[in-house]
This record gives sequence, structure tokens and C-alpha cells, in this order.
Amino acid sequence: MPELSDLPIRADLRGRSPYGAPQLDVPVALNVNENSYPVPPTVAADIARAVSDQAAGLNRYPDREFTALRGKLASYATGVLERQPSDGAADGPARIDPGQVWAANGSNEVLSHILQAFAGAGRTVMGFTPSYSMHPLIAASTGAAWLEVPRTADFEIDLPAALAAIEAEQPDVVFVCTPNNPTGGSTPLSAIGEILAVSPGIVIVDEAYAEFARPGFATALHLLPQHPRLVVSRTMSKAFAFAGARVGYAVAAPALIDALRLVRLPYHLSALTQAAACAALDHAPELLDNVERLVTSRDAMAAALAAAGFEPVPSDANFLLFRGAADPAELWQRFLDHGVLLRDIGIPGCLRVNAGTETETAAFTAALQSIVRAHPEVRA
Amino acid sequence: MPELSDLPIRADLRGRSPYGAPQLDVPVALNVNENSYPVPPTVAADIARAVSDQAAGLNRYPDREFTALRGKLASYATGVLERQPSDGAADGPARIDPGQVWAANGSNEVLSHILQAFAGAGRTVMGFTPSYSMHPLIAASTGAAWLEVPRTADFEIDLPAALAAIEAEQPDVVFVCTPNNPTGGSTPLSAIGEILAVSPGIVIVDEAYAEFARPGFATALHLLPQHPRLVVSRTMSKAFAFAGARVGYAVAAPALIDALRLVRLPYHLSALTQAAACAALDHAPELLDNVERLVTSRDAMAAALAAAGFEPVPSDANFLLFRGAADPAELWQRFLDHGVLLRDIGIPGCLRVNAGTETETAAFTAALQSIVRAHPEVRA
Repeated sequence: MPELSDLPIRADLRGRSPYGAPQLDVPVALNVNENSYPVPPTVAADIARAVSDQAAGLNRYPDREFTALRGKLASYATGVLERQPSDGAADGPARIDPGQVWAANGSNEVLSHILQAFAGAGRTVMGFTPSYSMHPLIAASTGAAWLEVPRTADFEIDLPAALAAIEAEQPDVVFVCTPNNPTGGSTPLSAIGEILAVSPGIVIVDEAYAEFARPGFATALHLLPQHPRLVVSRTMSKAFAFAGARVGYAVAAPALIDALRLVRLPYHLSALTQAAACAALDHAPELLDNVERLVTSRDAMAAALAAAGFEPVPSDANFLLFRGAADPAELWQRFLDHGVLLRDIGIPGCLRVNAGTETETAAFTAALQSIVRAHPEVRA
Repeated sequence: MPELSDLPIRADLRGRSPYGAPQLDVPVALNVNENSYPVPPTVAADIARAVSDQAAGLNRYPDREFTALRGKLASYATGVLERQPSDGAADGPARIDPGQVWAANGSNEVLSHILQAFAGAGRTVMGFTPSYSMHPLIAASTGAAWLEVPRTADFEIDLPAALAAIEAEQPDVVFVCTPNNPTGGSTPLSAIGEILAVSPGIVIVDEAYAEFARPGFATALHLLPQHPRLVVSRTMSKAFAFAGARVGYAVAAPALIDALRLVRLPYHLSALTQAAACAALDHAPELLDNVERLVTSRDAMAAALAAAGFEPVPSDANFLLFRGAADPAELWQRFLDHGVLLRDIGIPGCLRVNAGTETETAAFTAALQSIVRAHPEVRA
């Protein structure tokens, strides 16, 4: 049989490996920023009913415009405007209209649609790194060149350097990931406003983890009325405990949403996906209750890490990056030996762990204390 | 608010309109080649149970490698080898292995993955037209140039012209759509073998409608052992009555499947999609019973069209192209006035209609006879 290298694959793909964290079967998986709480039984029952109702009619194509889902996402986003109010840098709109909403199979597909419309071959995409590792991969998949500006030592956007780079490079698309994966901190609206002011193209604010933010976090949805080239992407994977259903969404000016219709494959959202997402959105308050519990878990983990001599980075997400590992790969293995799977995201001296259930948090803390007691040299 | 033309969209998208047939609410929709039969109740019940079982666990990412679905698709494809035997042009393999199988959200996404890996900017994709209109759109979405060779007056591939064009242009990817959408006829394996013999790159045989083929149709799956650059794409949308669930798949050498892992977005198939498709595949025999009924309907429609003075093109699909319309747009409207929605696919003198249920077929035939009686001038 032929090898991959025998096939006429594109030159830029040669020698690459597929993206993805190992899917290991471990007792406590805290490596892919999932919501550790199962969908609550009453919510799961409604989702089951909604998808079951679709089964007989699956012979028909789904609603290409996902009208019902779009309406429910607009209502949810309108509620976000109230829950995550402007920090004073922008006047918020009264509400989000359905015509401002897009959705796709996970926020990665949402981002892919945006970059297919506005990046692609001969164009450039800029990000502030370390940040979400799929951003450069999705840019490359459209043929665009990737530009990056390093964050400060505190993992914040280096605003003077960012603004200078945007003015020098004139990127077609700029990514601002806030709260930032994998570092956890967020970017104030005032800084995003400065980035928008100098950017010639599209600015994507990736708010996948925004529901987990500390009080004071302001959603970039507030900036939409003033900025027709801004798009805010969010996801149901995290706060809605919906990673398995693959539903991401974006909010922008209606004209920008129209551009995404030109690049999406027709009928990209299945009838099952649309029905399941609508049912989950009807239960937003219950699902957000678990967000509160995960925030509590995250803060407990941060305290345990600090007590054990590591440095957790202040986080607005459902995960923590912590510094102070003498050898991240070795520390990752020691946790795995205790049945706890973390993520080594390649930042020197750091590992990432996501907030778990109370049981998982206890298991993480016990493993942490046991490792540090037996092997104090794991700390830098 | 800004207009789309005010945004920095890619130059090749400017002025374009989104793909898609109108989603009109009509009594008899025979325009998008859906399977007109609902999913049978026992099958729908199992699908409902399978997706319901996923609801509570949707907080976790799905199996990125869709292992269970891959196994069931491999088994189904192995059965296809037996049901659609080689026409003598190739020795068939004994079976299809799970490592030869890919799946995605509809065959459009399968084709998109293949073209992302093997086409893209600076490369060329060739098709034999008229054929499936998404092929050039997906090629363009990867930045590849589209080349086309016209079919003969009978809508068959003009093999001498096709082989000469392949030798002259050296396309990176060649599409063979068989049975061909929107014309309905199929291409013998011997001709596909000749195309493979001269093609320097990937050859995609799009068999979306293969289950509806007349006896004697041979699946290109038989050619796989001899051709590592061949990929056969199929779908569950048609024969499996699964358009709403969005499941397409492809079969190829394992190395070619590995290439698709480099370009797919991680976790591209939701847990709901995987579970629903597995349940449907467990009921393949019942679903294929409805295929027989649709074939009977297609043949009855062909007879009615011929009796009414039109020329149906012999079809291996669940639809018919027919010639002999004096003005296709006018005839399309007359059918719509009778509550019957056909598809005007832009071929002079032609309309397309898909096979319906017995009731839909009767409604189509009644409308046809009524129109021809009242307006004999609709015939060319």
C-alpha cells in the first residue's frame, strides 16, 4: 500500500501531523477544557425529546438558514449584553438581532467561514501569542499567511507592539482571544477598541470562554454598533456543556454575516444539531448554574496550586495555566500516573488544567499535593 | 449599516450569491433529490434512542476518529461490493477496512476535505459538465482553478476529449460523478479505469446516487486495490433518507484517508451525528427497501414524461432530467402553479424532477398531464 508521502498532497501539508490532544481513557480528564458537568437530567431529557422529534423527518434537508436557532442565539446574546455590561469603553446596543447571528459545527468552523471569506491565499492573519493554536491552523487552511506578536511576560496583549504591528503589516484579519486560551486572562474593551481603530480589515474577538469570566469582564458584543468589521465568536461547547454537539456561533453586522453565506457549504448544520442547540438554549439558566460551580472549582484549584508552590495565572476561563514546573513533560506524566490528565501546551515551565467537578477538583488537588510531597523537585 | 460591498471580502467572492435551491413551502417538493420517504418508524425509533442516549454526555467532545461509525460504514461498503459487482473491468477486493473510510457533515464536506488536501491555490480541478454544481464551487473555495470538459449530447463523458484534456492539463484532481447529477446516467468502470490511467493526481468518483442505479451498475469501490489515488465518495443523504442528518463518506487507500486528517477541523462529527448514523446503518436493509420503491416511481415518471411528449434521460439516480421543454422557466412555473416544485438547473430545454412517494408521483403525473393538455405549447 502507498504511504502518505507517495500521494500528491499539497506542499504545505507535507510532514504535518493532525491536530489534537490525545484522547486517553483516564479517570480524571482535565486536558481539553470541557465542561466537566454532564448535561443536567431535565435538560438532557428535553434535548433527547427535541432530537427524537427530528428522526422521522431526516429524509428532508435541514433549514439552511437555521432560523429557529438563530433567533434563540440572538436572544441569548442579548442577555449576555446585560450580564457582561460595557466597561465604559463603548455604548452597548439594546439587543442583538437574528440577522446578526451565524452558527456552525463548532467555533472552529465559524472561524473557518470567516477566514474563507476575508483571508485566504495572498492575505494575512495576525494573532497575539501564545493563544488558541487552531487560529494559525485555520488561517493556513485558507492559504493565508500567519503573523504573530508575542504577548507580555504576563500573557497580556502588548498593546503598543500590537498596534505598531497592525499599522506596519496591515493584516486582513486580526484575532483577539479573550479570555485567552491557553493563558486565561482577558483583554479590556478599551484595548480592543484601539486595535479596531487601527485595523484595516476584520477583527475577530474569540470569546469562547467568556461565560466563565470574573465580574468586570465586558463582552465585545458592546462594540458592534460602532464597528462593522468586528465579529465576536462564541461557543456552546463550554458554558453550555455542549462540546459533543458541536455548536459555535458568531455575532456581527448583518452584511458580514451575509459574506459567510457565500462560503459555507449548503445545509452545513444538521437538523439534529439545530434541534439540540435550540433545546439547550431554552435551558440557559440551568446550564449557567454549572458555570458558577466550575468557577468555584477553578478558584479552588488556583489556591491549591499557589499553596503547592506554583504560580497560577489569573483566569477568566474554565481553565488555569500555571507556571513553576521544572519540567512540564515530567510533571504532566506524574499527574497522569495519578490518573489526572493535564495539557502540556508547549509554554516553558507551564501546564494547563481545566476546572472539574468537585470530585475531579479534589482528585487534582490530592494528586498535586502527593506529587509535590514526594517530588519537591517538580517545582522550578 | 454597511453593505456587503463595503467589507473587505475576497475579490473572488464579490458579487456572488449564496448557493442553494429556493426552500419553498409547496405540497409536492421534487427539486432537491431528497428521499421522499420519511425514515420508517422502527428505524426512526432506534435513531431517536441512539441520539437520546448521547444527550447527558454532550459536555464531552465526541470521538474525533468516529470509530464506531467508521466500522459500520466499512461493513456497509463491503456489502456494496457484493450488491454492485464489478462489470469485469476490475478485480474487486474482498472487503473494505475501517481504515479506508472517512466521513463528514455531508458529502460536500467530504469533497471539501479532499480538495483542501490535494487541490487549493495554484492547483487545478477538472470535471465533465454538466455535473454537480457544487464541484466547481468547492474547488474555488480552496483556491483551485476549475477546468471542464463538456459531455456528449447524450450527457455521457466524452472519453477521447476527457483523456486528451487530462493529458494536456495534468489536473491535480479529476471529478467523475456517476450516476451523474443532474443528468442521471452513469459511467462504466472501464472508462473510469482509462481516466485513472492517464490522471497524474487524485480521481474522485462521486457516487452519491449509486444505490438507485439500474442492474449492471458497478461501483468504483472495485477499483480501489489497483488505484491508490482513487477516492470514492458516497452519502447517506439519499438512499438512507438522511439528508437532514448530514452524513457523507468516502472510501480510499488508508494513506489518502490520513491526508484528510490533516485538513479536517478537530471533532468535525458531532456525537449526535455519529450516533444517528450508526443507528441508521444498522437498518440498512429496511432503508434500501424504500430505494426500490423510489426506483419504481422514477421509472413511472419516465414513462409518463415520454407519454406526454418529453424525453426523459435514462437515469441511474433517484431523479430524472427530461428534455423537450419549449421554455424551462415557464414550464417550471406551471408545475409550481399545480403545487409541484421541480428544479431548473440551467440546461437548455430541460428540467429535473426527483422520484417521489406514490402520492407525489401521482401528483406529478396529474400535473404533467393537465399542463400538456391545457398548454401543448410547453413542449418544444
